Amino acid sequence: MLYTYHLKTPPEGFLSITAQVKGAVAESGVQSGICVVFCPHTTAGITINENADPDVQTDLLLAYRAAFPDCAAFRHCEGNSAAHAKASAMGSSATVIIENGILLLGTWQGIYFCEFDGPRNRTFYVKIIEAR
Amino acid sequence: MLYTYHLKTPPEGFLSITAQVKGAVAESGVQSGICVVFCPHTTAGITINENADPDVQTDLLLAYRAAFPDCAAFRHCEGNSAAHAKASAMGSSATVIIENGILLLGTWQGIYFCEFDGPRNRTFYVKIIEAR
Amino acid sequence: MLYTYHLKTPPEGFLSITAQVKGAVAESGVQSGICVVFCPHTTAGITINENADPDVQTDLLLAYRAAFPDCAAFRHCEGNSAAHAKASAMGSSATVIIENGILLLGTWQGIYFCEFDGPRNRTFYVKIIEAR
Repeated sequence: MLYTYHLKTPPEGFLSITAQVKGAVAESGVQSGICVVFCPHTTAGITINENADPDVQTDLLLAYRAAFPDCAAFRHCEGNSAAHAKASAMGSSATVIIENGILLLGTWQGIYFCEFDGPRNRTFYVKIIEAR
Repeated sequence: MLYTYHLKTPPEGFLSITAQVKGAVAESGVQSGICVVFCPHTTAGITINENADPDVQTDLLLAYRAAFPDCAAFRHCEGNSAAHAKASAMGSSATVIIENGILLLGTWQGIYFCEFDGPRNRTFYVKIIEAR
Repeated sequence: MLYTYHLKTPPEGFLSITAQVKGAVAESGVQSGICVVFCPHTTAGITINENADPDVQTDLLLAYRAAFPDCAAFRHCEGNSAAHAKASAMGSSATVIIENGILLLGTWQGIYFCEFDGPRNRTFYVKIIEAR
Protein backbone atom coordinates (compact mmCIF):
# COMPACT_ATOMS: atom_id res chain seq x y z
CA MET A 1 0.00 0.00 0.00
CA LEU A 2 1.92 2.96 -1.35
CA TYR A 3 0.22 6.26 -2.10
CA THR A 4 1.83 9.03 -4.18
CA TYR A 5 0.82 12.69 -4.08
CA HIS A 6 1.90 15.79 -5.99
CA LEU A 7 2.03 19.41 -4.83
CA LYS A 8 2.81 22.80 -6.32
CA THR A 9 4.70 24.72 -3.68
CA PRO A 10 5.33 28.41 -2.93
CA PRO A 11 8.91 29.77 -2.60
CA GLU A 12 8.87 28.81 1.05
CA GLY A 13 6.16 27.51 3.32
CA PHE A 14 4.38 24.73 5.15
CA LEU A 15 1.61 22.95 3.23
CA SER A 16 -0.85 20.85 5.19
CA ILE A 17 -0.98 17.29 3.87
CA THR A 18 -2.99 15.86 6.75
CA ALA A 19 -6.06 15.31 4.57
CA GLN A 20 -4.11 13.29 1.99
CA VAL A 21 -2.50 11.13 4.67
CA LYS A 22 -5.85 10.52 6.38
CA GLY A 23 -7.31 9.61 3.00
CA ALA A 24 -4.55 7.07 2.36
CA VAL A 25 -5.14 5.46 5.75
CA ALA A 26 -8.91 5.30 5.14
CA GLU A 27 -8.46 3.83 1.67
CA SER A 28 -6.04 1.19 2.96
CA GLY A 29 -8.58 -0.12 5.44
CA VAL A 30 -5.76 -0.81 7.90
CA GLN A 31 -6.99 -0.74 11.50
CA SER A 32 -3.69 -0.95 13.36
CA GLY A 33 -0.18 -0.07 12.22
CA ILE A 34 1.96 2.87 11.23
CA CYS A 35 2.23 5.11 8.24
CA VAL A 36 5.42 6.69 6.93
CA VAL A 37 5.10 10.01 5.11
CA PHE A 38 8.24 10.43 2.99
CA CYS A 39 9.63 13.41 1.06
CA PRO A 40 11.93 12.39 -1.84
CA HIS A 41 13.51 15.86 -2.13
CA THR A 42 16.62 17.36 -0.47
CA THR A 43 15.50 20.97 0.08
CA ALA A 44 12.11 20.09 1.56
CA GLY A 45 11.00 18.00 4.51
CA ILE A 46 8.08 16.67 6.51
CA THR A 47 7.07 17.79 9.98
CA ILE A 48 4.17 17.54 12.40
CA ASN A 49 3.16 20.77 14.09
CA GLU A 50 0.20 23.00 15.01
CA ASN A 51 -2.85 22.80 12.76
CA ALA A 52 -4.90 25.66 14.25
CA ASP A 53 -3.20 29.06 14.05
CA PRO A 54 -1.45 29.64 10.67
CA ASP A 55 0.83 32.14 12.43
CA VAL A 56 2.68 29.16 13.87
CA GLN A 57 3.75 28.09 10.38
CA THR A 58 4.88 31.64 9.58
CA ASP A 59 6.86 31.74 12.82
CA LEU A 60 8.41 28.33 12.11
CA LEU A 61 9.75 29.71 8.82
CA LEU A 62 11.19 32.72 10.66
CA ALA A 63 12.73 30.50 13.34
CA TYR A 64 14.34 28.21 10.77
CA ARG A 65 15.68 31.15 8.75
CA ALA A 66 17.29 32.51 11.93
CA ALA A 67 18.76 29.13 12.91
CA PHE A 68 20.05 28.31 9.42
CA PRO A 69 20.91 31.60 7.68
CA ASP A 70 22.69 31.93 4.36
CA CYS A 71 26.44 31.96 4.89
CA ALA A 72 29.21 33.50 2.80
CA ALA A 73 31.34 30.39 3.29
CA PHE A 74 28.81 28.06 1.63
CA ARG A 75 30.32 26.46 -1.47
CA HIS A 76 27.38 24.67 -3.12
CA CYS A 77 26.91 26.55 -6.38
CA GLU A 78 23.11 26.41 -6.41
CA GLY A 79 22.94 28.85 -3.50
CA ASN A 80 20.41 26.79 -1.57
CA SER A 81 22.60 25.27 1.13
CA ALA A 82 20.49 26.80 3.90
CA ALA A 83 17.48 24.98 2.44
CA HIS A 84 19.42 21.70 2.54
CA ALA A 85 20.26 22.34 6.22
CA LYS A 86 16.64 23.15 7.07
CA ALA A 87 15.49 19.97 5.30
CA SER A 88 17.84 17.82 7.38
CA ALA A 89 16.73 19.53 10.60
CA MET A 90 13.06 18.88 9.79
CA GLY A 91 13.71 15.38 8.53
CA SER A 92 12.61 13.70 5.34
CA SER A 93 9.82 11.71 6.89
CA ALA A 94 7.26 11.49 9.66
CA THR A 95 5.94 8.28 11.16
CA VAL A 96 2.41 8.28 12.57
CA ILE A 97 0.55 5.56 14.46
CA ILE A 98 -2.70 4.10 13.04
CA GLU A 99 -5.16 2.86 15.67
CA ASN A 100 -8.78 1.84 15.14
CA GLY A 101 -8.43 2.76 11.50
CA ILE A 102 -7.45 6.38 12.04
CA LEU A 103 -4.29 8.43 12.49
CA LEU A 104 -3.37 8.85 16.15
CA LEU A 105 -2.58 12.57 15.94
CA GLY A 106 -2.95 14.97 18.84
CA THR A 107 -5.77 17.51 18.81
CA TRP A 108 -3.54 20.31 17.57
CA GLN A 109 -1.30 18.28 15.28
CA GLY A 110 -1.24 18.46 11.51
CA ILE A 111 1.22 16.94 9.03
CA TYR A 112 3.11 19.44 6.87
CA PHE A 113 5.19 19.36 3.71
CA CYS A 114 7.96 21.94 4.35
CA GLU A 115 9.17 23.77 1.24
CA PHE A 116 12.47 25.59 1.71
CA ASP A 117 13.50 26.11 -1.94
CA GLY A 118 10.44 26.58 -4.11
CA PRO A 119 8.39 27.19 -6.05
CA ARG A 120 8.52 23.64 -7.40
CA ASN A 121 6.45 20.64 -8.36
CA ARG A 122 6.95 18.26 -5.47
CA THR A 123 5.98 14.70 -4.60
CA PHE A 124 5.46 12.83 -1.37
CA TYR A 125 4.70 9.22 -0.52
CA VAL A 126 2.61 7.54 2.15
CA LYS A 127 3.49 3.94 2.96
CA ILE A 128 1.26 1.97 5.32
CA ILE A 129 2.53 -0.91 7.43
CA GLU A 130 -0.08 -3.02 9.12
CA ALA A 131 0.62 -4.45 12.56
CA ARG A 132 -0.02 -8.15 12.94
CA MET B 1 -0.16 -3.30 20.60
CA LEU B 2 -0.46 0.32 21.58
CA TYR B 3 0.74 1.60 24.93
CA THR B 4 -0.22 5.00 26.37
CA TYR B 5 1.71 6.86 29.06
CA HIS B 6 1.15 10.09 30.95
CA LEU B 7 3.71 12.55 32.34
CA LYS B 8 3.72 15.71 34.41
CA THR B 9 6.42 17.93 32.97
CA PRO B 10 8.53 20.83 34.27
CA PRO B 11 8.59 24.20 32.43
CA GLU B 12 11.32 22.90 30.19
CA GLY B 13 13.36 19.73 30.25
CA PHE B 14 14.16 16.24 29.07
CA LEU B 15 12.38 13.39 30.85
CA SER B 16 13.72 9.89 30.44
CA ILE B 17 11.04 7.51 29.15
CA THR B 18 13.39 4.63 28.38
CA ALA B 19 11.97 2.48 31.18
CA GLN B 20 8.40 2.86 29.91
CA VAL B 21 9.39 2.00 26.35
CA LYS B 22 11.40 -1.03 27.51
CA GLY B 23 8.40 -2.11 29.57
CA ALA B 24 6.09 -1.89 26.56
CA VAL B 25 8.45 -4.00 24.48
CA ALA B 26 8.75 -6.61 27.24
CA GLU B 27 4.97 -6.75 27.75
CA SER B 28 4.38 -7.16 24.02
CA GLY B 29 6.56 -10.24 23.86
CA VAL B 30 7.73 -9.18 20.38
CA GLN B 31 11.16 -10.59 19.58
CA SER B 32 11.92 -8.76 16.33
CA GLY B 33 10.49 -5.55 14.96
CA ILE B 34 10.42 -1.82 15.61
CA CYS B 35 8.74 0.45 18.09
CA VAL B 36 7.54 3.97 17.39
CA VAL B 37 7.50 6.40 20.33
CA PHE B 38 5.11 9.22 19.40
CA CYS B 39 4.41 12.59 21.04
CA PRO B 40 0.92 13.96 20.26
CA HIS B 41 1.82 17.54 21.26
CA THR B 42 3.18 20.46 19.22
CA THR B 43 5.50 22.12 21.73
CA ALA B 44 7.19 18.92 22.86
CA GLY B 45 9.09 16.19 21.06
CA ILE B 46 10.94 12.90 21.38
CA THR B 47 14.68 12.40 21.07
CA ILE B 48 17.35 9.82 21.77
CA ASN B 49 20.48 11.11 23.48
CA GLU B 50 22.93 10.48 26.33
CA ASN B 51 21.61 8.61 29.35
CA ALA B 52 24.61 8.95 31.67
CA ASP B 53 25.54 12.56 32.50
CA PRO B 54 22.46 14.72 33.22
CA ASP B 55 24.55 17.76 32.24
CA VAL B 56 24.06 16.70 28.62
CA GLN B 57 20.31 17.29 28.92
CA THR B 58 20.90 20.69 30.52
CA ASP B 59 23.29 21.59 27.71
CA LEU B 60 20.81 20.38 25.07
CA LEU B 61 18.26 22.84 26.45
CA LEU B 62 20.84 25.65 26.31
CA ALA B 63 21.83 24.70 22.75
CA TYR B 64 18.22 24.62 21.57
CA ARG B 65 17.45 27.95 23.25
CA ALA B 66 20.42 29.49 21.42
CA ALA B 67 19.45 27.97 18.05
CA PHE B 68 15.75 28.86 18.35
CA PRO B 69 15.49 32.06 20.41
CA ASP B 70 12.35 34.09 20.95
CA CYS B 71 11.93 36.60 18.16
CA ALA B 72 10.14 39.95 18.11
CA ALA B 73 8.70 39.15 14.67
CA PHE B 74 6.83 36.06 15.87
CA ARG B 75 3.09 36.48 15.40
CA HIS B 76 1.57 33.48 17.20
CA CYS B 77 -0.31 35.02 20.08
CA GLU B 78 0.49 32.30 22.62
CA GLY B 79 4.12 33.42 22.74
CA ASN B 80 5.48 29.89 22.41
CA SER B 81 6.64 29.89 18.80
CA ALA B 82 10.21 29.05 19.80
CA ALA B 83 8.85 25.93 21.53
CA HIS B 84 7.04 24.95 18.32
CA ALA B 85 10.31 25.35 16.38
CA LYS B 86 12.26 23.27 18.91
CA ALA B 87 9.60 20.55 18.74
CA SER B 88 9.91 20.32 14.95
CA ALA B 89 13.71 20.21 15.15
CA MET B 90 13.58 17.35 17.68
CA GLY B 91 10.81 15.53 15.86
CA SER B 92 7.55 14.15 17.16
CA SER B 93 8.68 10.54 17.23
CA ALA B 94 11.59 8.17 17.54
CA THR B 95 11.79 4.74 15.96
CA VAL B 96 13.84 2.07 17.70
CA ILE B 97 14.72 -1.45 16.58
CA ILE B 98 13.62 -4.48 18.65
CA GLU B 99 15.93 -7.50 18.39
CA ASN B 100 15.87 -10.63 20.55
CA GLY B 101 13.03 -9.14 22.53
CA ILE B 102 14.87 -6.00 23.64
CA LEU B 103 15.40 -2.45 22.40
CA LEU B 104 18.54 -2.13 20.31
CA LEU B 105 19.81 1.07 21.95
CA GLY B 106 23.47 2.03 22.17
CA THR B 107 25.21 1.86 25.55
CA TRP B 108 24.85 5.59 26.18
CA GLN B 109 21.43 6.10 24.58
CA GLY B 110 18.23 6.89 26.40
CA ILE B 111 14.84 7.93 25.02
CA TYR B 112 13.63 11.35 26.15
CA PHE B 113 10.36 13.27 26.16
CA CYS B 114 11.40 16.88 25.41
CA GLU B 115 9.24 19.52 27.09
CA PHE B 116 9.65 23.01 25.64
CA ASP B 117 6.48 24.69 26.93
CA GLY B 118 5.49 23.28 30.30
CA PRO B 119 4.58 22.61 32.95
CA ARG B 120 1.82 20.45 31.51
CA ASN B 121 0.16 17.08 31.68
CA ARG B 122 1.50 15.25 28.65
CA THR B 123 0.93 11.93 26.90
CA PHE B 124 3.03 9.71 24.69
CA TYR B 125 2.37 6.51 22.78
CA VAL B 126 4.42 3.44 22.03
CA LYS B 127 3.36 1.37 19.03
CA ILE B 128 5.05 -1.94 18.36
CA ILE B 129 5.32 -3.42 14.88
CA GLU B 130 6.47 -7.01 14.69
CA ALA B 131 8.68 -8.10 11.80
CA ARG B 132 7.52 -11.21 9.99
CA MET C 1 16.32 -9.19 9.22
CA LEU C 2 18.84 -7.01 11.00
CA TYR C 3 22.04 -5.86 9.33
CA THR C 4 25.01 -4.37 11.22
CA TYR C 5 27.70 -2.18 9.68
CA HIS C 6 30.89 -0.61 10.99
CA LEU C 7 32.57 2.65 9.96
CA LYS C 8 35.74 4.53 10.74
CA THR C 9 34.84 8.19 10.83
CA PRO C 10 36.73 11.47 10.40
CA PRO C 11 36.60 14.19 13.13
CA GLU C 12 33.43 15.55 11.56
CA GLY C 13 31.64 14.72 8.36
CA PHE C 14 28.89 13.01 6.42
CA LEU C 15 29.61 9.48 5.22
CA SER C 16 27.41 8.01 2.53
CA ILE C 17 25.87 4.72 3.63
CA THR C 18 23.39 4.43 0.77
CA ALA C 19 25.21 1.48 -0.78
CA GLN C 20 25.13 -0.52 2.46
CA VAL C 21 21.42 0.17 2.97
CA LYS C 22 20.61 -0.77 -0.64
CA GLY C 23 22.64 -3.93 -0.16
CA ALA C 24 20.67 -4.88 2.95
CA VAL C 25 17.39 -4.38 1.12
CA ALA C 26 18.56 -6.47 -1.84
CA GLU C 27 19.82 -9.26 0.44
CA SER C 28 16.54 -9.33 2.37
CA GLY C 29 14.52 -9.97 -0.78
CA VAL C 30 11.72 -7.82 0.64
CA GLN C 31 9.61 -6.31 -2.13
CA SER C 32 7.41 -3.96 -0.10
CA GLY C 33 7.97 -2.46 3.32
CA ILE C 34 10.17 0.00 5.15
CA CYS C 35 13.72 0.02 6.42
CA VAL C 36 14.94 1.79 9.53
CA VAL C 37 18.56 2.96 9.54
CA PHE C 38 19.55 3.45 13.19
CA CYS C 39 22.61 5.06 14.79
CA PRO C 40 23.35 3.74 18.32
CA HIS C 41 25.58 6.71 19.25
CA THR C 42 24.77 10.04 20.90
CA THR C 43 27.14 12.40 19.07
CA ALA C 44 26.32 11.13 15.60
CA GLY C 45 23.11 10.82 13.60
CA ILE C 46 21.52 9.73 10.35
CA THR C 47 20.16 12.03 7.66
CA ILE C 48 19.01 11.94 4.06
CA ASN C 49 20.32 14.71 1.84
CA GLU C 50 21.94 15.48 -1.53
CA ASN C 51 24.07 12.74 -3.08
CA ALA C 52 25.51 14.68 -6.02
CA ASP C 53 27.58 17.70 -5.01
CA PRO C 54 29.87 16.98 -2.03
CA ASP C 55 29.87 20.73 -1.30
CA VAL C 56 26.38 20.25 0.13
CA GLN C 57 27.77 18.04 2.86
CA THR C 58 30.51 20.56 3.63
CA ASP C 59 27.91 23.31 3.80
CA LEU C 60 25.68 21.20 6.06
CA LEU C 61 28.55 20.93 8.53
CA LEU C 62 29.05 24.71 8.42
CA ALA C 63 25.33 25.32 8.86
CA TYR C 64 25.11 22.97 11.85
CA ARG C 65 28.22 24.51 13.45
CA ALA C 66 26.60 27.94 13.14
CA ALA C 67 23.25 26.76 14.52
CA PHE C 68 24.76 24.79 17.42
CA PRO C 69 28.02 26.51 18.43
CA ASP C 70 30.10 25.68 21.48
CA CYS C 71 28.88 27.62 24.48
CA ALA C 72 30.72 28.75 27.59
CA ALA C 73 27.73 27.77 29.73
CA PHE C 74 27.84 24.10 28.71
CA ARG C 75 28.48 21.89 31.73
CA HIS C 76 29.11 18.43 30.26
CA CYS C 77 32.73 17.72 31.07
CA GLU C 78 33.55 15.94 27.81
CA GLY C 79 33.29 19.22 25.89
CA ASN C 80 31.15 17.73 23.14
CA SER C 81 27.72 19.14 24.02
CA ALA C 82 27.40 20.83 20.64
CA ALA C 83 27.84 17.43 19.02
CA HIS C 84 25.05 16.02 21.21
CA ALA C 85 22.79 18.89 20.09
CA LYS C 86 23.59 18.34 16.42
CA ALA C 87 22.89 14.63 16.79
CA SER C 88 19.43 15.31 18.23
CA ALA C 89 18.67 17.83 15.45
CA MET C 90 19.63 15.31 12.77
CA GLY C 91 17.90 12.42 14.49
CA SER C 92 19.19 8.98 15.34
CA SER C 93 17.40 7.21 12.52
CA ALA C 94 15.96 7.51 9.04
CA THR C 95 13.03 5.50 7.73
CA VAL C 96 12.89 4.75 4.01
CA ILE C 97 10.16 3.07 1.97
CA ILE C 98 10.89 -0.16 0.06
CA GLU C 99 8.82 -0.64 -3.10
CA ASN C 100 9.32 -3.25 -5.83
CA GLY C 101 12.36 -4.50 -3.97
CA ILE C 102 14.27 -1.20 -3.98
CA LEU C 103 14.63 1.87 -1.78
CA LEU C 104 12.21 4.62 -2.77
CA LEU C 105 14.73 7.47 -2.61
CA GLY C 106 14.49 10.63 -4.69
CA THR C 107 16.94 11.14 -7.54
CA TRP C 108 19.21 13.40 -5.51
CA GLN C 109 18.85 11.66 -2.16
CA GLY C 110 21.53 9.70 -0.36
CA ILE C 111 21.59 8.32 3.19
CA TYR C 112 24.35 9.70 5.42
CA PHE C 113 25.96 8.79 8.71
CA CYS C 114 26.66 12.17 10.38
CA GLU C 115 29.77 12.24 12.55
CA PHE C 116 29.94 15.23 14.92
CA ASP C 117 32.55 14.00 17.42
CA GLY C 118 35.08 11.77 15.70
CA PRO C 119 37.29 10.23 14.74
CA ARG C 120 35.74 7.03 16.07
CA ASN C 121 34.80 3.47 15.23
CA ARG C 122 31.06 3.64 14.71
CA THR C 123 28.22 1.20 14.06
CA PHE C 124 24.84 1.48 12.41
CA TYR C 125 21.95 -0.92 11.97
CA VAL C 126 19.46 -1.53 9.20
CA LYS C 127 16.20 -3.22 10.17
CA ILE C 128 13.76 -4.25 7.46
CA ILE C 129 10.03 -4.53 8.08
CA GLU C 130 8.01 -6.22 5.37
CA ALA C 131 4.52 -4.97 4.61
CA ARG C 132 1.85 -7.63 4.53
